[in-house]
Amino acid sequence: MTGGAGAGGARLRLVRPEWLDPEDERTARAVWSRIAEPGDRDAAVFVREHGPGPALARVLGGARVPRTTGARGRGGPERPGAGAPAGGDAADGWRERLAVTDPRRDLATLHRFGGRLLVPGDAEWPAGLDDLGDRRPFCLWVRGALDLGQVCRRAVAMVGSRASTAYGETVAAQIAAGLAERGVTVVSGAAFGIDAAAHRSALAFGGATVAVLACGVDRPYPRSHERLIDRIVAEGVLVSEVPPASSPTRWRFLERNRLIAAMSGATVVVEAALRSGALVTAREAEDLSRQVAAVPGPVTSVASSGCHLLLRDRAAGCVTSAADVHALVARIGEAEPDPPSGPRAAHDDLGPLDLRVFEAVPVRSAAPTASVARTAGLGLPEVEPALGRLDLLGLVRREGAGWRRSPAPRRRPGAPAG
Amino acid sequence: MTGGAGAGGARLRLVRPEWLDPEDERTARAVWSRIAEPGDRDAAVFVREHGPGPALARVLGGARVPRTTGARGRGGPERPGAGAPAGGDAADGWRERLAVTDPRRDLATLHRFGGRLLVPGDAEWPAGLDDLGDRRPFCLWVRGALDLGQVCRRAVAMVGSRASTAYGETVAAQIAAGLAERGVTVVSGAAFGIDAAAHRSALAFGGATVAVLACGVDRPYPRSHERLIDRIVAEGVLVSEVPPASSPTRWRFLERNRLIAAMSGATVVVEAALRSGALVTAREAEDLSRQVAAVPGPVTSVASSGCHLLLRDRAAGCVTSAADVHALVARIGEAEPDPPSGPRAAHDDLGPLDLRVFEAVPVRSAAPTASVARTAGLGLPEVEPALGRLDLLGLVRREGAGWRRSPAPRRRPGAPAG
Repeated sequence: MTGGAGAGGARLRLVRPEWLDPEDERTARAVWSRIAEPGDRDAAVFVREHGPGPALARVLGGARVPRTTGARGRGGPERPGAGAPAGGDAADGWRERLAVTDPRRDLATLHRFGGRLLVPGDAEWPAGLDDLGDRRPFCLWVRGALDLGQVCRRAVAMVGSRASTAYGETVAAQIAAGLAERGVTVVSGAAFGIDAAAHRSALAFGGATVAVLACGVDRPYPRSHERLIDRIVAEGVLVSEVPPASSPTRWRFLERNRLIAAMSGATVVVEAALRSGALVTAREAEDLSRQVAAVPGPVTSVASSGCHLLLRDRAAGCVTSAADVHALVARIGEAEPDPPSGPRAAHDDLGPLDLRVFEAVPVRSAAPTASVARTAGLGLPEVEPALGRLDLLGLVRREGAGWRRSPAPRRRPGAPAG
Repeated sequence: MTGGAGAGGARLRLVRPEWLDPEDERTARAVWSRIAEPGDRDAAVFVREHGPGPALARVLGGARVPRTTGARGRGGPERPGAGAPAGGDAADGWRERLAVTDPRRDLATLHRFGGRLLVPGDAEWPAGLDDLGDRRPFCLWVRGALDLGQVCRRAVAMVGSRASTAYGETVAAQIAAGLAERGVTVVSGAAFGIDAAAHRSALAFGGATVAVLACGVDRPYPRSHERLIDRIVAEGVLVSEVPPASSPTRWRFLERNRLIAAMSGATVVVEAALRSGALVTAREAEDLSRQVAAVPGPVTSVASSGCHLLLRDRAAGCVTSAADVHALVARIGEAEPDPPSGPRAAHDDLGPLDLRVFEAVPVRSAAPTASVARTAGLGLPEVEPALGRLDLLGLVRREGAGWRRSPAPRRRPGAPAG
């Protein structure tokens, strides 16, 4: 089959490429990931209605696909009337790119890097992505040692500002370490700051980690994280929805966040300013009914202001440790937050009447029982046995005809006596 | 009238004092505040059933009042079977103290300090205390320049650890200052740490402040806060439910917290460790259906761990500023939290298509329109008008036959053109 030029007036005319096989869904999905931008709902709907291969054939055949949504993703502005109007033809854009697309080249590049293409239905496909509906990626370009589907079964997204503080990085490292020790995968974006701290700590503690890029998996970004990303490939998984050689655009960064949120059971914002992309990831997680949590920080630190916004206005959970985070993703009863702890005083376990009597016994000198009763505001029939109990606990002692507190109250020795 | 000794076997026998006038409710309440410990429900129920004066006469007459609750207040342990059993006679304790009580002396002391006694129903009585039911204090011993009922109409309790950090004290001072500027009264306990920082800052900014003591208003505690407390008397209000010369016991500290919570529309825990009394105040506020909020801090600081507990497990609101706190107590619409702010980029207001086109325009060299279209994944019919809009906004400019980004993107000049 050859020919099949476009039908529209001034439209770009394309020759049907030799690689096009409408039955080959994998290749067609790889092509769609190249010609449609992440989050392009018109493409998703068109592919859902016709199937990936036949949809491509229709595009080549000059199909018109009126743009319905402005190709808007979550990250874009949502004010009605802002920017360009809808009403263009989405297929024009796909054809512009189709003219210079060859999936065989993209797949060869991927294989040269030891990678693999995942499509929905594959055993390794992360089930959480299916919750995205028409915002589900066409495919994933993946490199790495671990099974992506498997490691995402117990996974937490840890995200935050690139402009992080030492505090934020320390807490990110502590939480990621604790998650690694609990067998929970850390999903993040390989960016500077919080992302890198989380990945590095997960790796250092032998945990699984997944980095989702906004660019091709063959060209690590940021460049200075090349060694980190190499290590993620060697011991974790590197993922992107855009093909090799794709550059990271602001749009792709915004849309990438939905993948991080969808692949994880919960999203934790460790440290984020008010306009951080981490808040977009949190919103994606909310929209997916995933747990969202934030780590508090000093209210005097603008680097934590986004976290406080989440806690204040968006009902995010407050997490301070890996145990708290683990409780978000664990089945009920499987994990509990750290119990409150702190120094306990010897009289902490006293009943209310014993406490009143204890407090009525002087520290520096002895007082007769009647005086203790008056101070405590209790009758002798109650005060006398209470003093006996306190004596047994080592909290008070007789001195002459009276009572005074023991000089160094001991810890309560087991069960109450008497 | 004389005589009227007790009827019980080994019970204390009292002569009916000359000051007792069952019609004089004020004096009777002053006596009850001396003979019953704060939060003594048996006393509250007995007084409610008979009236303050007649209830006193009954006590003098040897009435038996089986203890039903162990005189337990909120602060006491609540484990069943802990400590002393119920079943004693509460009136025995009241009689022990009644034998050495003379309300004329207590009131004379109060007046010598320029104070006044408030009882329920007085114009100056804080209405919020009535929400305490049988835990409402019998009366209040008050010193100070302001009308207590009035200043409590818009009041926030600010509480926290005595062992505070510089961070906690700074934030307490900032919030108290902002509340003072907004005409909101700061209620606290005059303790070291957060309490003192809140009082001092409210005073410094000309705001109203109320200190609720666990001891008599004639004997400031802690002693080293004598000057602070003098200033609160001079410019605010000093309050206690126990009579002059009463000492501050642990029990009274615990029960005092219910007054702080009840007199305030909201309770803010600024900085508190896990076993801080501030958490008791927060629990009291919850039980009274008052707003409870906590200021987050570094998760690495144990001084903030109680705040994080409130945020994590007890659904406290997250507050970071006086504006946040003000929103808790203000009528809806009367105040709003600070809007998120932060640096905005020139392209922040772009619609999604314009943003895609903007991102496809190179920074360092010019590219022809067709190349921009391919990079953006959009058709020429959409790209050309988008470039026109971006040009009008000063974000891109023509160069030769192509387009490049403007060197220094300007802020968006008003409404979108074209």
